[in-house]
Amino acid sequence: VIYVITPTHARPQQKAELTRLKNVFLHVPALHWILVEDSEQKTGLVKHFLESGGISFTHLNVPTPKDWKLGENQPVWQKPRGVLQRNAGLDWLRSNFEPPASRAVVYFADDDNTYSTELFQEMRWTKKVSVWPVALVGGVMVERPKVTLSGKVNGWLTGWKPDRAFATDMAGFGINLDLLVNNPEAEFSLDSQKGFMESDFLEKIVKLHELEPKADMCTKVYIWHTRTEKPNMKDEEKLRKEGRPTNRNIEV
Amino acid sequence: VIYVITPTHARPQQKAELTRLKNVFLHVPALHWILVEDSEQKTGLVKHFLESGGISFTHLNVPTPKDWKLGENQPVWQKPRGVLQRNAGLDWLRSNFEPPASRAVVYFADDDNTYSTELFQEMRWTKKVSVWPVALVGGVMVERPKVTLSGKVNGWLTGWKPDRAFATDMAGFGINLDLLVNNPEAEFSLDSQKGFMESDFLEKIVKLHELEPKADMCTKVYIWHTRTEKPNMKDEEKLRKEGRPTNRNIEV
Ligand SMILES: O=c1ccn([C@@H]2O[C@H](COP(=O)(O)OP(=O)(O)O)[C@@H](O)[C@H]2O)c(=O)[nH]1
Ligand SMILES: O=c1ccn([C@@H]2O[C@H](COP(=O)(O)OP(=O)(O)O)[C@@H](O)[C@H]2O)c(=O)[nH]1
Ligand SMILES: [Mn+2]
Ligand SMILES: [Mn+2]
Repeated sequence: VIYVITPTHARPQQKAELTRLKNVFLHVPALHWILVEDSEQKTGLVKHFLESGGISFTHLNVPTPKDWKLGENQPVWQKPRGVLQRNAGLDWLRSNFEPPASRAVVYFADDDNTYSTELFQEMRWTKKVSVWPVALVGGVMVERPKVTLSGKVNGWLTGWKPDRAFATDMAGFGINLDLLVNNPEAEFSLDSQKGFMESDFLEKIVKLHELEPKADMCTKVYIWHTRTEKPNMKDEEKLRKEGRPTNRNIEV
Repeated sequence: VIYVITPTHARPQQKAELTRLKNVFLHVPALHWILVEDSEQKTGLVKHFLESGGISFTHLNVPTPKDWKLGENQPVWQKPRGVLQRNAGLDWLRSNFEPPASRAVVYFADDDNTYSTELFQEMRWTKKVSVWPVALVGGVMVERPKVTLSGKVNGWLTGWKPDRAFATDMAGFGINLDLLVNNPEAEFSLDSQKGFMESDFLEKIVKLHELEPKADMCTKVYIWHTRTEKPNMKDEEKLRKEGRPTNRNIEV
């Protein structure tokens, strides 16, 4: 089983993002989606979306505390995102798994990235931690693990902070569920230094030389760290003030 | 058959966009994808992508003349986009179709929008021209056709230029192939007034009261006019100048 943990938060394009995820997840056998809303309450939109069918899922929610939320016009790197939501997914797995967990893998899939079907084939047989290239991240076309001729990971090709022990984006690794169950203290931290969230987490469970390079020794791109533009809502705001939003009685 | 015509152009996130399209098209039976590159030559990237399989396709290309290309930092609305590419798709259909065309429908799918599987079920049995809501466009959450109680389209709910005869985005309609074959003069024009490209085109082939409202009388959203952020390429540009791009020998 592939357990996919996705933090998600409300915004105009949320259902579009979730729809694109569903389009690819529907191609993947034995996938269970743990979708975690960043909210006080589960929303109708996400509930209806999940119940519309086709995918095995668990629907959770946990709000990010106000002090940790990005302001409307704050640059994205000033606050970590999706931290408590990913941890809620891990908690759920740890309290619900039934041994043997060894044939299950856990993947953290943000709601706005672009995933290929091949990615999930690559990660499925992870023994400890698998790694692969991630495109369009860190100011470069592609960041990736360095792999020796004998197939060991011995470093990272990244533009940005190459001194991190595990210089990978959240989208660049999959973890065997056993390893997470046997290391119950491994969680993401709001207090990690900027850009060190993934590295700090992986340091708790694995060593560099244990990493399993996938995607043809890390020479293929199967995941892109895309981001979606904030849609223009100028007329909508006017209409809302006049009490006639365009999306009354129609879920967008 | 559903013929999908997609204009596409080179940029860092191009393969990601095409991958998301493929993820949804693979769910649609009897779909033929006419992918038209805005380029002098067909590119290896798109060729490899299409040949990697799973989808029936036709690969075309036609460059937009320099004077009609958007400058690097020009706002998007200053030039029409994908015009000659969509016309190349229409030309191909007109010269390759074999009667009866009446069971085929043509749809214009830009490469960056978000499509649900339901959309294609809705458009499949189009007699002349089907229409439905499009989300995240024109400064509002959703634009859509107005439908009378007896199921006729009699106008448009849009924030922007509601005076257009057919106030719909490119993503909001599907056309029976017969109608296009019988109206060979119907093409998109570079000279349409800003925002009137769709309307001018539809005026040539259909009347308002003939439109077929889909998606539960235009009360459901099955397509979102999303746009992808331009990825940050700061470090990549430095590395390129030093002769060591991160994507050497690895297709992104
Ligand atoms: O306030 C927020 C902002 C983001 N996210 C989620 O956290 C993940 C990462 O956020 P984002 O994609 O904005 O970060 P990026 O890595 O693109 O900078 C995504 O799944 C978001 O939906 C969240 O749960 N709450
Ligand atoms: O120079 C260009 C710019 C855009 N496009 C294509 O034309 C369509 C519409 O462009 P875009 O999505 O940028 O327009 P929007 O409607 O989002 O403003 C897309 O499929 C693009 O790939 C193109 O072929 N050449
Ligand atoms: Mn993201
Ligand atoms: Mn677009």
